[in-house]
Amino acid sequence: MEKINGLIAANFAPYNTDGSVNYALIPAIVEEMLQQGVKGVFICGTNGEGPSLSTEERMQLAEAYVNIVNKRLLVFVHVGHSSITEAKRLAAHAAEIGADYISAVSAFYFKPSSVDNLVSCMAAIASAAPKTPFFYYHIPTVTGISIDLLAFLELAEQAIPSFAGIKYTASTIHEYQACLHYKDGKYDILFGFDELLLPALAVGAKGAIGSTYNYAGRLYNQVIALFEAGKLAEAELLHFEAVKMIRLLVKYGPIPTQRSIMKKIGLDLGIPRLPLRSLSAEVEQALYADLTASGFIALTKDEQ
Amino acid sequence: MEKINGLIAANFAPYNTDGSVNYALIPAIVEEMLQQGVKGVFICGTNGEGPSLSTEERMQLAEAYVNIVNKRLLVFVHVGHSSITEAKRLAAHAAEIGADYISAVSAFYFKPSSVDNLVSCMAAIASAAPKTPFFYYHIPTVTGISIDLLAFLELAEQAIPSFAGIKYTASTIHEYQACLHYKDGKYDILFGFDELLLPALAVGAKGAIGSTYNYAGRLYNQVIALFEAGKLAEAELLHFEAVKMIRLLVKYGPIPTQRSIMKKIGLDLGIPRLPLRSLSAEVEQALYADLTASGFIALTKDEQ
Amino acid sequence: MEKINGLIAANFAPYNTDGSVNYALIPAIVEEMLQQGVKGVFICGTNGEGPSLSTEERMQLAEAYVNIVNKRLLVFVHVGHSSITEAKRLAAHAAEIGADYISAVSAFYFKPSSVDNLVSCMAAIASAAPKTPFFYYHIPTVTGISIDLLAFLELAEQAIPSFAGIKYTASTIHEYQACLHYKDGKYDILFGFDELLLPALAVGAKGAIGSTYNYAGRLYNQVIALFEAGKLAEAELLHFEAVKMIRLLVKYGPIPTQRSIMKKIGLDLGIPRLPLRSLSAEVEQALYADLTASGFIALTKDEQ
Amino acid sequence: MEKINGLIAANFAPYNTDGSVNYALIPAIVEEMLQQGVKGVFICGTNGEGPSLSTEERMQLAEAYVNIVNKRLLVFVHVGHSSITEAKRLAAHAAEIGADYISAVSAFYFKPSSVDNLVSCMAAIASAAPKTPFFYYHIPTVTGISIDLLAFLELAEQAIPSFAGIKYTASTIHEYQACLHYKDGKYDILFGFDELLLPALAVGAKGAIGSTYNYAGRLYNQVIALFEAGKLAEAELLHFEAVKMIRLLVKYGPIPTQRSIMKKIGLDLGIPRLPLRSLSAEVEQALYADLTASGFIALTKDEQ
Repeated sequence: MEKINGLIAANFAPYNTDGSVNYALIPAIVEEMLQQGVKGVFICGTNGEGPSLSTEERMQLAEAYVNIVNKRLLVFVHVGHSSITEAKRLAAHAAEIGADYISAVSAFYFKPSSVDNLVSCMAAIASAAPKTPFFYYHIPTVTGISIDLLAFLELAEQAIPSFAGIKYTASTIHEYQACLHYKDGKYDILFGFDELLLPALAVGAKGAIGSTYNYAGRLYNQVIALFEAGKLAEAELLHFEAVKMIRLLVKYGPIPTQRSIMKKIGLDLGIPRLPLRSLSAEVEQALYADLTASGFIALTKDEQ
Repeated sequence: MEKINGLIAANFAPYNTDGSVNYALIPAIVEEMLQQGVKGVFICGTNGEGPSLSTEERMQLAEAYVNIVNKRLLVFVHVGHSSITEAKRLAAHAAEIGADYISAVSAFYFKPSSVDNLVSCMAAIASAAPKTPFFYYHIPTVTGISIDLLAFLELAEQAIPSFAGIKYTASTIHEYQACLHYKDGKYDILFGFDELLLPALAVGAKGAIGSTYNYAGRLYNQVIALFEAGKLAEAELLHFEAVKMIRLLVKYGPIPTQRSIMKKIGLDLGIPRLPLRSLSAEVEQALYADLTASGFIALTKDEQ
Repeated sequence: MEKINGLIAANFAPYNTDGSVNYALIPAIVEEMLQQGVKGVFICGTNGEGPSLSTEERMQLAEAYVNIVNKRLLVFVHVGHSSITEAKRLAAHAAEIGADYISAVSAFYFKPSSVDNLVSCMAAIASAAPKTPFFYYHIPTVTGISIDLLAFLELAEQAIPSFAGIKYTASTIHEYQACLHYKDGKYDILFGFDELLLPALAVGAKGAIGSTYNYAGRLYNQVIALFEAGKLAEAELLHFEAVKMIRLLVKYGPIPTQRSIMKKIGLDLGIPRLPLRSLSAEVEQALYADLTASGFIALTKDEQ
Repeated sequence: MEKINGLIAANFAPYNTDGSVNYALIPAIVEEMLQQGVKGVFICGTNGEGPSLSTEERMQLAEAYVNIVNKRLLVFVHVGHSSITEAKRLAAHAAEIGADYISAVSAFYFKPSSVDNLVSCMAAIASAAPKTPFFYYHIPTVTGISIDLLAFLELAEQAIPSFAGIKYTASTIHEYQACLHYKDGKYDILFGFDELLLPALAVGAKGAIGSTYNYAGRLYNQVIALFEAGKLAEAELLHFEAVKMIRLLVKYGPIPTQRSIMKKIGLDLGIPRLPLRSLSAEVEQALYADLTASGFIALTKDEQ
């Protein structure tokens, strides 16, 4: 299997004003992804509010994406669920419609008690889509599951025939580096902490999945190009633009803030599902002012 | 609305050997509950593995329970879900089939950011079953949501017309006591930490929901009777029998251990869903030996 | 050794306006303790800011207390320190001056990694004062050390010849109850969570150490008297007065707030050491208004 | 003031067999530091067990180091203490004996409640040594204090005339990067997480303080040299040798394990103070076997 290079955008969920899923917006979203220069989309994950959608909505979204993308991008379908029974249903469906990859977070109501237990959960899900490469989605700040990922790799290699790698969303880049080296780079370890992309490149990251690539893919692609060209000081300066922007996300709430940014670049995604909320009009204006003042908006739009 | 007095058993989910839900066992479970002297059952909650079941399974379980119970016990249907959309569907269904009460934990993938946000989530769920009394299920050790419940009561009173009270599963009995006093006892605050039942009685608890009442309801009912009769020293000694038993649950894992105890008293519930697991045969034998040695098995069987 | 019955006040540290320790105020503090009806004082603990004082100040404070108390109250000297070397020095000194008891929290910079390791630390400290009864001070919300205290008792019994019991400051009353029952009540397990005193009485608490007994000892003594007389409803109502007051402490910060209450009852303790701060004049006035409106001030002053 | 470049070794505390501090070993330690190619030593910090030493021992250690180093290395004296009174005494003493820098962790028994409160604590300590540059030691995994360090920089700049920078021991390299950029690099932000040195170099790190530099300074210096020469792939491979070794430290316990490594390279530091313990002889042999098998011992000894 070919290794994944480049950026994958973790897409946000689009809603109509009545709160239903806005499938009609997907073509425009996909078009923007192509413009941003990303290699794929990751849907129904954390940013895509998968756990807030119904199983039926998740299946329809996946189907719409696969059809509209039509092989122009890689499609990762996140199938994680508190119920492994539902996760298996989502996995089987994703395989059936031709998704390129599936991925799942740990069960998150009952939390796995050991690496072995976690691998059993992931193996159960992957078994429902045995021919679709499977990524474990590691995001301890959300799930509270913090295990040794090298021990995970050893067990997953045995227990999950379709195992392809990890979406690694944590700041522990030394462990990330060790995962990249596992069996001489046998697996795709996709980095998931956008504001740490440059440090991750320094230890060998080749692929990354993240939310900010939805609207700043071009900026990060240029960071990667500068890094690969050995222009480290320039890469660092450009990467710092992303870091400054992400501080604003933390200030105002990551998903609501980024949904406002998507609106600013022309994609109105509507109001997210509870417990998430939209930024107030006032906060949104303050955000736009901050982003304009910092020059970030310009950086995301123009070719660098 | 009449206040709830006495014990409510948080039922475990019954499974067939193929992993499907064993609806055929429900009559026997309900019969045991009547024998244990509990006033009601709480289904599809934490012990009932609600978050590990599919939405369809949860609806079928609720329907089976309501029919089989046939008004002999109060039926609480837990409808909490990571997706409020699914929770609303479960709530509407519970109302339609005639459940006595509905209850929900906080959304648990995305966690509410404030009391106000949590109340909005609960109000959305309750609105799908406006005539069915609603209980917020507070269990911070599982959900990670730890908010000031007096602030919650003030907002819930305004925002949720069908609000009936709280299933309070935490050791902070001083806050529990303050909730009981809210507006001179306007709401049912049902205590959910079985090993602290006697301390909770001392601050005025009248109703309680818990897992150990499935098999030790008679023991706890006698603790209550002794307490109410002013026989505090005897109440304390009997309550300590429960405390010692619950230390075994923690040692071996609460839900798997209690499922083994249910088997011992004649109800084989099968293997729980991942990430939960059954006790190994060896651990189960050690548990049974401990429970027999301590005299606990005898205490749960005989009239005290 | 006789068991400890009744309340022990965890005294606050008194300071002069220049920030030095105000030894001259100790006679008035001790007089107030006698008025409050407490049986002893616990000094240089959390409320006494022991970890913010120098070793020399702690030794002088202990000496002053022992002399002024002059056997009218039990004197517990807290000797816990991040350095076990310093803790041993404090323990030896406390023994030398005739303190009744010594007590120590776990080392708190490096945290013990096991029950066995914690017991080794406590044994090292106790060994410096082999004839002075030793209490382990369990306060996991501050130290972050949360271990199984029954396992602790088993090891401490073997390793610490002068071991006398535990100052138990946690809400897990079921474990507290189990500690009380250890070897038929061999040790003094003093309850340390004032707002849970009544629930703790229900499982057999006889002694308690706490900060609110500094100014509300009379109120709690009456709760105990009502409980012992079997007047549970009255006990609960009076205990609820304490619970309501303690909610104010949490609102404004426990130690600064209580230092303001001490000022209100006539003992001006000065400004605490950093990182603690005094309440602002504005917040102090709001607190006094709250306490007066609720009738709490009256309850602490008059004979009930 | 000149900026700090290169590696600072966070020295371990040396003990005699009777548990007293082994001042006689300091010349040999300093000699080893010169061999390792580090630019300075950081003493009485976490690795140096400062919080486990008495104030007198800390002062004697500082004096011994300053004298023996005799300007051949920079000397950082850590003066953090649970008591700011004691920390000030340590700070004044460090200034008096001619230490190059002082540094302090947050108060760690009572934890600062805000950035402002933390800055007040640090300002109080720094004021006792107004001419000695002061570094805040940020280590949230140990102290539990996790604050926004850009907000800290803004307040510290105003409140601490001798403020020189931060010892940044956390994996959040994006925040580290932002601190480096603060006012165009006004402050020294020394990186403290050795296994993440290479990622930190990628965002501009110039100086670093860490424990592994005690025995692997040469290896890391070569990583830095390769990075600066643009040989990123080689730098990454060599850095990975450190990452693999540090996984062993976590496996066996960081400080005890590294003290065993120091013994292996010829510096027997004795048994650490409780709550720390030495590795058992068996574990120590397993460690040495692992380090030899991996080739790490060879890497630390020879010129690369």
